[in-house]
Amino acid sequence: MNSCVIIFSGGLDSTVLCYKAAADNFDVHAISILYGQRHSREIEGAKKTAELLGINHKVIDLSSINELLQGSALTDSSVDVPEVPETTEHFETLKSTIVPNRNAIFLSVAIGFSESINANHIFFGAHHSDRGVYPDCRKEFVEAFETAERLATDNQKLTISAPFVGMDKAEIVALGDKLGVPFENTWTCYVGGEIHCGVCSACNERKRAFRESGVKDPTEYEA
Amino acid sequence: MNSCVIIFSGGLDSTVLCYKAAADNFDVHAISILYGQRHSREIEGAKKTAELLGINHKVIDLSSINELLQGSALTDSSVDVPEVPETTEHFETLKSTIVPNRNAIFLSVAIGFSESINANHIFFGAHHSDRGVYPDCRKEFVEAFETAERLATDNQKLTISAPFVGMDKAEIVALGDKLGVPFENTWTCYVGGEIHCGVCSACNERKRAFRESGVKDPTEYEA
Repeated sequence: MNSCVIIFSGGLDSTVLCYKAAADNFDVHAISILYGQRHSREIEGAKKTAELLGINHKVIDLSSINELLQGSALTDSSVDVPEVPETTEHFETLKSTIVPNRNAIFLSVAIGFSESINANHIFFGAHHSDRGVYPDCRKEFVEAFETAERLATDNQKLTISAPFVGMDKAEIVALGDKLGVPFENTWTCYVGGEIHCGVCSACNERKRAFRESGVKDPTEYEA
Repeated sequence: MNSCVIIFSGGLDSTVLCYKAAADNFDVHAISILYGQRHSREIEGAKKTAELLGINHKVIDLSSINELLQGSALTDSSVDVPEVPETTEHFETLKSTIVPNRNAIFLSVAIGFSESINANHIFFGAHHSDRGVYPDCRKEFVEAFETAERLATDNQKLTISAPFVGMDKAEIVALGDKLGVPFENTWTCYVGGEIHCGVCSACNERKRAFRESGVKDPTEYEA
């Protein structure tokens, strides 16, 4: 059985990714990273999912990097969370949700872990609709990072895969539905109240993904 | 004035690097990272150097990644620190001092910071004698990582430089001497007692660098 390390936020995409990797017969080691995000509602869902799925799960607190990564709406409460209809449009507005170099930081930590346990496979849940706003969700980045990391670790077997990089969120919801993902344990909202706000860009994208996929959305939204 | 971010352990190489960057008229932002290392004697020296040099200095505690990066003599007290004469030989023995993917993790954090402050220049102190043991100290890695990080940040101006990558430690000591580096504030020893042990591989390399450069070694060694 091959082992893999998954960057597991507890959001919809990375939750489906954990189910997919388990279905593909990987021994899954999932890591959730606290980086000073506005809220950690996702992590609660991640813990539930990991328990249900019976995978190894580590929560790592790197929140002191927040001191270095300023100016994002996701980490800095003085920056408003944008309310716009869709992720793939409104690039300029959504730029406020970029956390500088977040995926490279998460991937490099995941690779340190995978080297420690000889896992060789790293998965992360970037999807196609991310590519407009988030440069570190693009296929070109993932490929270049794999090249660099094979040199960093002197391990030519190391692979970094973003299996959803060509899929939109509706396709990920459809796949998750097929795999029996308990979507009610996944968290998407950028605001982080008691329930999903229903108006931030992330909630809007989530709603649309369920609508387009024809899968029933179990999420309670405020609006 | 250009700004730069330096990964600043407080060791000899990164201290000389801070002096060099300041002499080259950079506005220096140095970061020291706690990653669960066996001791943090270096950080005390880093603080002194930063104050003397009047540069911005942040100490970031990422020690919870230690849970992920097991098996190195530098982070795991159950693994012995090797006592061998030189870094460029004894590859197999020195492999126990590899912290998996450490430089990629540190660089990605430094780049997140540089993006936040629009610095564009990242320096780190890998030197030529590191290349045998540590793959993430090699020129090929630095170049590939720069390529990947330009994609991650969508910033073509981003540069990652390891100006000592072609120099051995004796040449770095000679440069530091010219720049007036207070070597007594730098820490090299892997063991981390009250004073330098004088017998670990790092102490041996330090001794040799002073001897070969002809610069007076102000270090107190136990042996």
